Amino acid sequence: MTEPSASGDPQGPSKNALKKAAKEKEKAEKKAAAKARELAERQKKEADDANDVSADCYGELPMVGSPEFKPSNLPRVNLADIVELADKEIVFRCWVENARVQSAKLAFLNLRQGLNTIQAVVAASEKLSKQMVKFAGNISTESTLVVHGLVKKTQEAVKSATIKDYEIHITKLFIEAKAEVPLPMQIEDAERPLPSEGLGNEDEKAAGDEGRPLVGLNTRLNNRTLDLRAKINHCIFVIKSGVCELFQEFLRGKGFVMIQTPKLQGAASEGGSNVFEVKYFDRPAFLAQSPQWYKQMLVASRFPRVMEIGPVFRAENSNTARHLTEFTGLDLEMEFQENYHEVMGLLEDLMLFIFKELNVRYKKETELVRSAYHVEDFKLPESGKVPRIPFVEGIKMLREAGEELGDYDDLTTPQEKHLGRLVLEKYGSDFYVLDQFPLAIRPFYTMPSPANPLLSNSYDMFMRGQEILSGAQRIHDAELLRKAIRNYDPPLDPDSPAFKDYVDGFRFGCPPHGGGGFGLERIVQFWLGLPNIRMCSLFPRDPQRIMP
Amino acid sequence: MTEPSASGDPQGPSKNALKKAAKEKEKAEKKAAAKARELAERQKKEADDANDVSADCYGELPMVGSPEFKPSNLPRVNLADIVELADKEIVFRCWVENARVQSAKLAFLNLRQGLNTIQAVVAASEKLSKQMVKFAGNISTESTLVVHGLVKKTQEAVKSATIKDYEIHITKLFIEAKAEVPLPMQIEDAERPLPSEGLGNEDEKAAGDEGRPLVGLNTRLNNRTLDLRAKINHCIFVIKSGVCELFQEFLRGKGFVMIQTPKLQGAASEGGSNVFEVKYFDRPAFLAQSPQWYKQMLVASRFPRVMEIGPVFRAENSNTARHLTEFTGLDLEMEFQENYHEVMGLLEDLMLFIFKELNVRYKKETELVRSAYHVEDFKLPESGKVPRIPFVEGIKMLREAGEELGDYDDLTTPQEKHLGRLVLEKYGSDFYVLDQFPLAIRPFYTMPSPANPLLSNSYDMFMRGQEILSGAQRIHDAELLRKAIRNYDPPLDPDSPAFKDYVDGFRFGCPPHGGGGFGLERIVQFWLGLPNIRMCSLFPRDPQRIMP
Repeated sequence: MTEPSASGDPQGPSKNALKKAAKEKEKAEKKAAAKARELAERQKKEADDANDVSADCYGELPMVGSPEFKPSNLPRVNLADIVELADKEIVFRCWVENARVQSAKLAFLNLRQGLNTIQAVVAASEKLSKQMVKFAGNISTESTLVVHGLVKKTQEAVKSATIKDYEIHITKLFIEAKAEVPLPMQIEDAERPLPSEGLGNEDEKAAGDEGRPLVGLNTRLNNRTLDLRAKINHCIFVIKSGVCELFQEFLRGKGFVMIQTPKLQGAASEGGSNVFEVKYFDRPAFLAQSPQWYKQMLVASRFPRVMEIGPVFRAENSNTARHLTEFTGLDLEMEFQENYHEVMGLLEDLMLFIFKELNVRYKKETELVRSAYHVEDFKLPESGKVPRIPFVEGIKMLREAGEELGDYDDLTTPQEKHLGRLVLEKYGSDFYVLDQFPLAIRPFYTMPSPANPLLSNSYDMFMRGQEILSGAQRIHDAELLRKAIRNYDPPLDPDSPAFKDYVDGFRFGCPPHGGGGFGLERIVQFWLGLPNIRMCSLFPRDPQRIMP
Repeated sequence: MTEPSASGDPQGPSKNALKKAAKEKEKAEKKAAAKARELAERQKKEADDANDVSADCYGELPMVGSPEFKPSNLPRVNLADIVELADKEIVFRCWVENARVQSAKLAFLNLRQGLNTIQAVVAASEKLSKQMVKFAGNISTESTLVVHGLVKKTQEAVKSATIKDYEIHITKLFIEAKAEVPLPMQIEDAERPLPSEGLGNEDEKAAGDEGRPLVGLNTRLNNRTLDLRAKINHCIFVIKSGVCELFQEFLRGKGFVMIQTPKLQGAASEGGSNVFEVKYFDRPAFLAQSPQWYKQMLVASRFPRVMEIGPVFRAENSNTARHLTEFTGLDLEMEFQENYHEVMGLLEDLMLFIFKELNVRYKKETELVRSAYHVEDFKLPESGKVPRIPFVEGIKMLREAGEELGDYDDLTTPQEKHLGRLVLEKYGSDFYVLDQFPLAIRPFYTMPSPANPLLSNSYDMFMRGQEILSGAQRIHDAELLRKAIRNYDPPLDPDSPAFKDYVDGFRFGCPPHGGGGFGLERIVQFWLGLPNIRMCSLFPRDPQRIMP
């Protein structure tokens, strides 16, 4: 039996079939022509290759880890050490910021490694083929390379690179990991500052300083792996890492123990609003809004000084430039002897230490970011004494400056910023403390003020007029705590499972204590004067964004 | 109109009413007698108080922070400095381990501060009243005190205290925070070791070494704030803090940057099993099982070396002595040049540094815990070279020792422990690496081995025969990664939203890299040789426990 043709028509050639045959003929002719062309090209290439004195000196490396890859075991250098490497043959890994063919005999590359960039020259010679020059000049931007070359002093300073006095005369050059083309965004666009707070789509349309389209925050965050390659972003996160380091260094020196408290909690703490719910096997659980209760329970367990660096989760539907649903808390809690100002003093010293050391250890990174955003230096009082302003005094300053507000009102964000400007004028400091907040606007576990029952032994810390820390003396007496829970607005039940373990923690001789919680991203944001907190989170989370 | 009586009978006194009247009379007489007794007692007390030469030297302090409290501003000392304090009048905060009245004129207290305990004597004299002796000897265990006293060398060593050569002759003594009686558990019971793994209720019933009832793990964890006061627990968590410190110290010295990756994720990673689901506003989100993908994306963002300390969440219904649903990951990821053994070498050096420094900086704490649990020292190879055992070699060792298993089988926990004993015998090391695991039992992003496609460039690290780290070279090429995702068992879709951002991260020139993730609690558990991982988590989380 004859099989039916694929066209489904067993009767003989139709119009369609004739058309098809003609098409196929055309195709076959084209194919033959292409083959001939290909052959000619291959022959030319083979001839070129035969002449290619550099054949072993460039190309794509087999993948590291694959069977074809043979390690060279050559030591790799760091371009930060360039001065010591002058006139030496070096090997290093880098990536391509920019590659261009200048002529058949000359290509230039801008190579980057960390925060350093250097110019590299690929010049045809007896030992270096034109094919290699062509290959080098056409490498796609962002590809990772292994470069062999000679470090030479330049005749005149290279404008386009951070290393101005040296360049690389390339002898070998291999692509280790090729970047696809086109890139979804250009790294150089990510280097330029965001307009205003970077929220809203209109930013995408606005034109930048140099007439280039601005890449808005959303595009950047959607392509975060590329966006983070920008030098400015490297600096931000190196500084963030530095703040963690300095926080621990200072506190460890003062006897603080690093703790890890649970982020999964059986009951929603602090009244239950703004808490994310988790499916925990067959029951609900909740994500910790802060390590507050646990760090206090540890003080009750006779850990006199504890610190924690960990994620903090807030199910707040706030779409502002200074809120995240997940951020990093720098928390501490400590016994004090007789006055909660012992805690406040330690917190002030901690921040002064961090500021001072950021200026020493992370000066370069700080300056790079601030100069891109035209941000002024962070001012600290010449006396070294942090302004401690009683809340009522802050209210008075604001009233004198024309704000209308009551003695026990909470400050709005614009009022906080206004107060920040007033404090800067009066005390010459971008960092200060507001002390003795009204009791009614603080959490129930806050110790009331001995001087005025409407106030409390609590404080906030501010940088450039924005809050970075909230802290207080906590109630360390179980009976007083129960009363505070019952008298809360709305009233709560101290015997409910949500409170029981917490309250019980204070029944067996807990010493007086206090502490505070910093927002790490805010410290970085306000240190650098950045417009949006999302810039200080590697992969920020807000009500709209949970990817990547 | 006459109001009806409360009994509801308006007709006159009934039998019940007569009974009631008789009762009330009796009550009134009792009340009068009690009043008379009270009066007599008060008069006696007033007389005593009038005679009480120590009236201002003891009692309950008003609450620190309350209006009645007046700070003394006296400097407080640390009992760790006792040698320098000999023959001095000192003031210090401490708590009561034990108080007892020896006679009307003499009371003894065991006082604790940190890991130190000291004996204190309250002896009646012309300057110190019998009332004060009585007060001191009756203070409830675990109350927090402020003690004034003279440091005196003892005639003979005090057996019951850690400070043996000095005692305190108390001059003043105030209760700062009184502990309620009775305590739900005794701290000294928490000092004694758990039997076996501490799981199961039968432990509660078993009798301890000295015939005391054993306080089981569940009771301890239910009263964790008290349980944690035990010295042994202080040591465990001071060591845990120390491991965090040493981890960062070593890696920072090698150029690692501390990162914080998001714990809230928009898609369930790594296939989606064992992931906790979160209600994220109007959609589902998931808790990070590991920072794996993010730390790799950061290497792709040109952060050459990153580290993270953060919570890791596993929705695994495992009720064993070595699983938690929330634990602390010590993670790192780094570029390497040509061979993933560069990463393995760094991980080995990191652990050797941690072990060495734990032995130096946390010797006292380590010894205290190990001696309570009769645990042997942690052995390291004298050569300083960590045993690196290829997986196939491990299989061979186990087979020779009688285990039955195939070349590419995963090891069971008992087999791992068995191998640990064999390695200890052969190499004299409690720490070792298994290298080149079968590809099929590793995550899809693991780089296959160039030598054998059934193996992979991956490794685990072990302490005392139990896994503490899993790590590998990762696939850094987007195409190979897509293929690995498609070929996974079960097959997955690399273009699904769960994978897209991750895979895209490798499209633009990511260098070869590898890393690993340690379980912090396991390092502490196996360093100390403890039977249950819950002992190394301040507030452990398992399928049964999410409180306190």
